[in-house]
Amino acid sequence: MPTLSVFADVPVAHKLEGSLLKAYRQDNDPSKIFLVYRVCMTDEGLPWVSLVVHKTRLQIAQDPSLVYEYLPGLGSKSFIQASLELLFGKHSPVIMENRAGGVHTVGESGSFRLGAQFLRTWHRGTHTVCIVSYQKESHGLIFQDMGFEVYEYCIWDPKQRRLDSNVLLSVVERAPSGCILVIGNPVDCRLTQSQWAKLMSTMKSKQIFPFLDIPCQGLSTGDLEEDAGVLQYFVSWGFEFFCSQCLSKNFGIYDESVGTLVVVALNNEQLLCVLSQLMSYAQALWLNPPARGSRIITTILCNPTLQEEWKLSLKAVVEKMMLIKEKVKEKLRLLGTPGSWDHITEQTGIHGYLGLSYQQVQYLIKKHVYIPKNSQINFTCINTNNIEYITQSISEAVFSTEHTEN
Amino acid sequence: MPTLSVFADVPVAHKLEGSLLKAYRQDNDPSKIFLVYRVCMTDEGLPWVSLVVHKTRLQIAQDPSLVYEYLPGLGSKSFIQASLELLFGKHSPVIMENRAGGVHTVGESGSFRLGAQFLRTWHRGTHTVCIVSYQKESHGLIFQDMGFEVYEYCIWDPKQRRLDSNVLLSVVERAPSGCILVIGNPVDCRLTQSQWAKLMSTMKSKQIFPFLDIPCQGLSTGDLEEDAGVLQYFVSWGFEFFCSQCLSKNFGIYDESVGTLVVVALNNEQLLCVLSQLMSYAQALWLNPPARGSRIITTILCNPTLQEEWKLSLKAVVEKMMLIKEKVKEKLRLLGTPGSWDHITEQTGIHGYLGLSYQQVQYLIKKHVYIPKNSQINFTCINTNNIEYITQSISEAVFSTEHTEN
Repeated sequence: MPTLSVFADVPVAHKLEGSLLKAYRQDNDPSKIFLVYRVCMTDEGLPWVSLVVHKTRLQIAQDPSLVYEYLPGLGSKSFIQASLELLFGKHSPVIMENRAGGVHTVGESGSFRLGAQFLRTWHRGTHTVCIVSYQKESHGLIFQDMGFEVYEYCIWDPKQRRLDSNVLLSVVERAPSGCILVIGNPVDCRLTQSQWAKLMSTMKSKQIFPFLDIPCQGLSTGDLEEDAGVLQYFVSWGFEFFCSQCLSKNFGIYDESVGTLVVVALNNEQLLCVLSQLMSYAQALWLNPPARGSRIITTILCNPTLQEEWKLSLKAVVEKMMLIKEKVKEKLRLLGTPGSWDHITEQTGIHGYLGLSYQQVQYLIKKHVYIPKNSQINFTCINTNNIEYITQSISEAVFSTEHTEN
Repeated sequence: MPTLSVFADVPVAHKLEGSLLKAYRQDNDPSKIFLVYRVCMTDEGLPWVSLVVHKTRLQIAQDPSLVYEYLPGLGSKSFIQASLELLFGKHSPVIMENRAGGVHTVGESGSFRLGAQFLRTWHRGTHTVCIVSYQKESHGLIFQDMGFEVYEYCIWDPKQRRLDSNVLLSVVERAPSGCILVIGNPVDCRLTQSQWAKLMSTMKSKQIFPFLDIPCQGLSTGDLEEDAGVLQYFVSWGFEFFCSQCLSKNFGIYDESVGTLVVVALNNEQLLCVLSQLMSYAQALWLNPPARGSRIITTILCNPTLQEEWKLSLKAVVEKMMLIKEKVKEKLRLLGTPGSWDHITEQTGIHGYLGLSYQQVQYLIKKHVYIPKNSQINFTCINTNNIEYITQSISEAVFSTEHTEN
């Protein structure tokens, strides 16, 4: 009789991503190009690392005074303080009034995971989560795994090839009272001041709990304050909220990625209660968070010279990326490619939609240019070596379908 | 009207531990001593770090060829391979037959957290977990949080002041069929070969799923193979099982603690299915694990000279700790302390029970010697500077209660 196996019925898990990357890796054509990396890439096609990070890493390794003990359950205090100040500014009322705090989280999903677990237990509203974002993220799956009902909305309108800032407003209008609203990288939403005010007012009256995502502060517009500016609306309207602050892409610390689950409460007493609950969840998730990434980031943020160097490096990345977008647009124009390509330069951030149809995407993949179905690419994957081939291929793709579309 | 607060009903979380440490910290007496640190301590009262770790850390920081990209979801492949070989030996059938694998986990609870989540979904038996261990761990809370019914048993018999190896056997006899059995640091159980055989046979017939814990391989007996030797029984009896392998205490990497959730399946096909499911859970927990700790450990394990240095450093720690136990016993004897103190040297590992009563523990705390109610202490906290005071205080405590006890 064969042994009964506990694992016999376990199927292979559905993969979240990776089939495009797999196809790219199996492609032997020398001209193959992958345009969907998650992080900023350098001209050499490697993940970008802020130079100041390299320097700091070496400095830390040579520091004989460093203590390698366990970090506390909530993580490094100085790291959390520096992260909060980066997000809100030193003189924000939430910091001055001791009602903003955070938990040092692990990896890029840690803060959503921790926040979702807290809300599952303590949020008294409906167990509905509405996610509004510019691009598909894994947050939806995290909330689903925790038993929430999840609705996802994209602010990119593929037909009009433009951002539709009304999506956020209409989602909030239709959302059930007492739900949770996740706004992915709010700087992408580009609401006007009066639109934000309307949003705040509706959210207040419907008691919607905001869970904001700041995935790469400084890499959207090149300006740290501008990228997190939307938080000020939530602060000034007196909201309680969570914010997932990820600090790996904007420092170029990928293998030690850390972040903070930021909590803003109405007063210090409530903040401490919430943090104590979060700590008990974090203990069951990982007990003590890893120190390396947070140590590098804290060193940079707490030293004005290093911080300035870091800011300049962010600005340089964004300027270069904007230049690439301009060049792509200009080359498509010179090739006489039908249609307007202004939407390329109108989008902020590293990732942007090319605005191509399914057929055009398929054409590009046949030309060994790997882009996803929704044609959102990472513009820093385009460099002086491959820009000619890429724009030529896009142009051909558009010409090839000129008479079959619209 | 005051704003309705989402956080208004959130109470302060119950603390898992720390009240004794808090009392110790608030104590201003210069002779105060804390004997319950989680990790090996040096003579200077600092957490022990294997010297080879310091060297490797510096070497890694100066390596210009290192790539700092995201690790894959399952973690560093070479780290997992090296960890598996450390646990089972290179030529173990489970490695040769490609049916042992692992997921790189974060912190000290990561592997139990991940394993519990998998079992919650895929284990078809009862949702009952029996935990047998030498000391109280946080595993019980992790399984409870995941919705399991948890029963915890301790193999230390405080009345007889000795390990009771029958506890494990009788728990398995009484456990419901199809339950999960967690064995904390199995080397502590000290079953004879025939007792293990009996245990295996009962577990097989009752289809009990083993989840083993190897928290500090090499720090129990000073011998790496001996500390993980029990796994060989499970392998040779053809079990499928999980094993939480923690690699922070035995390297002295506390601030970057990592481990592996080890999976042993009946064949490679099932192993890959289980790993793919675990990867999807890990993605929601942290997406990519941090690299630092695993990089140091892999460097040491894959270099025979460094590995040998590391092994010698483990042996030295254990020898020193055994010498301290001998000295404590001898000093208690010389002070004429009533009773036998052989149980101190009979216990392996850093943590051991002094075998004191509640009143005696209270006496010690009044003398500023901080030990927990169950009198289990970390023997590496005792050093040449404090041994006199500690043994004197223990002796006084025993004398003081001589006529009130037994």
